Amino acid sequence: MPKVDVTACALAFRDEIKKEIEVRVEAGGPRPKLVGIIANKDEAAVMYARWTERACARDGIQYELRQVERVDLEDAVIEANEDPAVNGIIVYYPVFGGPIDDYLRDVISVEKDVEGLNHRYRYSLYHNIRVLSDLGNRKAILPCTPLAILKILNHLGAYKQELPVGEQLAGQTVVLYNRSEVVGRPLAAMLANDGALVYSVDIDNMLIYRKGRVNGTIKVEETEVTQDEALAAADIVIAGVPHPKFKIEASKVKPGAIAVNFSQFSNFGEGIEEHTTFVPAIGKVTIAMLERNLHRLHMASEAA
Amino acid sequence: MPKVDVTACALAFRDEIKKEIEVRVEAGGPRPKLVGIIANKDEAAVMYARWTERACARDGIQYELRQVERVDLEDAVIEANEDPAVNGIIVYYPVFGGPIDDYLRDVISVEKDVEGLNHRYRYSLYHNIRVLSDLGNRKAILPCTPLAILKILNHLGAYKQELPVGEQLAGQTVVLYNRSEVVGRPLAAMLANDGALVYSVDIDNMLIYRKGRVNGTIKVEETEVTQDEALAAADIVIAGVPHPKFKIEASKVKPGAIAVNFSQFSNFGEGIEEHTTFVPAIGKVTIAMLERNLHRLHMASEAA
Repeated sequence: MPKVDVTACALAFRDEIKKEIEVRVEAGGPRPKLVGIIANKDEAAVMYARWTERACARDGIQYELRQVERVDLEDAVIEANEDPAVNGIIVYYPVFGGPIDDYLRDVISVEKDVEGLNHRYRYSLYHNIRVLSDLGNRKAILPCTPLAILKILNHLGAYKQELPVGEQLAGQTVVLYNRSEVVGRPLAAMLANDGALVYSVDIDNMLIYRKGRVNGTIKVEETEVTQDEALAAADIVIAGVPHPKFKIEASKVKPGAIAVNFSQFSNFGEGIEEHTTFVPAIGKVTIAMLERNLHRLHMASEAA
Repeated sequence: MPKVDVTACALAFRDEIKKEIEVRVEAGGPRPKLVGIIANKDEAAVMYARWTERACARDGIQYELRQVERVDLEDAVIEANEDPAVNGIIVYYPVFGGPIDDYLRDVISVEKDVEGLNHRYRYSLYHNIRVLSDLGNRKAILPCTPLAILKILNHLGAYKQELPVGEQLAGQTVVLYNRSEVVGRPLAAMLANDGALVYSVDIDNMLIYRKGRVNGTIKVEETEVTQDEALAAADIVIAGVPHPKFKIEASKVKPGAIAVNFSQFSNFGEGIEEHTTFVPAIGKVTIAMLERNLHRLHMASEAA
């Protein structure tokens, strides 16, 4: 099987957003505006900002990159929070690294959090709450990278459209390498919400995420299953380990499985594309989801 | 100079709280109730829970320790959030370690967060917001350990009572080893809010925290000052480095300074008590502040 290029998947979303924006602009409405704030010299961040700028330019979205010193970052976020011309804010991490960056994520107002990473949105996600009733029934924003991965899985036919929403991944096993609060753990919860059995692997151990007995709840369990056993059973393997030496041996993955890599490094060993449907990179869809979240926040702010 | 025993400082607060509780109980009111939730086997956590239980018993506070599996911790917190008989919740960390523990901190409702560590309270602290106007003008809760350290500094005469509030540490230099989100960074901000010039040291670098030009703001700056220069200038040195080998050489600390250790290890080298006012441990005052925060939350819930 060939490697999967997700460009078409990304463009399908972007074309739709572009069209909707043009309709609104023609009717005299403003274009959505995204502000990126960068306070580091991280190459990956600079590149991601550049790609975002290019995608926004094509799709009729205003994008402004603001460069600040790290000690001024919180003030820059608050300024953008308070500016009615700004619809979405994205901060490029790491800045301080660790808990101070987590703190900063929560300073972005829910009205402008295109990344869907503040605590309100994450809590909603973990509890399958779709609408924030105390915030004018605004829909919760889902984090871009996990959302992009779901869209790619859907694009590849992993979701069974004939089943009801919330059960479309029922019967499918996922192994997911990464349990960060920005991708791996929300993604595990989202896959479980959609009916999958998810083995969540981090550096210390493996946990199981699956639907709880009560609708809208997730059950997290310790497990005695080994990583190799989980891999052998998995219909979908997703990896985002930020280390160049981490490799999942291709021979351990079930033939015919879907393998998705979202690390900056290739987390799968040689030959993976020979017996799986292999997605080597997802960045283009992530940017499409960023635009999608911005468009939604923009529409919600216009409606408010 | 002898080592400072903070027992008297702690008891002064506890006696007052105990008295206030008794008055309310005699008038037919309920006792405040604190729930501790433990999901690890961490020895320090078990010990802290035991000390808290003992202090609460003496002071007329109900304390209940709940043992749960880590995968059930979030549900246990939500259950306690929803139980009107519970006034305060303390979770003993680390559980998962890192960002998942940070997430859990924000699950505790602001009405019951005795540790003052959720994002609402930390944001208020960093911006010197004392009252949460959207939550019935409830007063923001300050985190126990930083608050305990301020109370100890006050007890030792570091605060100049003749100066207005917010300037009582003006002219004083502090070196603070630790920039965690649970102690070091909030403490740096609180000391800066009170007028001190604070050198905040973490494993990578040193930052300066001081009052901003606008009242109620803090200015954070990078600095070229070396740690030794900062130490030589410091009237107050505070250390909480969780490593047995980390030692501040006594000879580098200015004679007559106040030295406070809040690590589980002794962060100061031999001889420190000979030329400083040395506080080797602060745990008793931390527990007193936990009681104080609980008492405040209890009174606020009765008033609501």
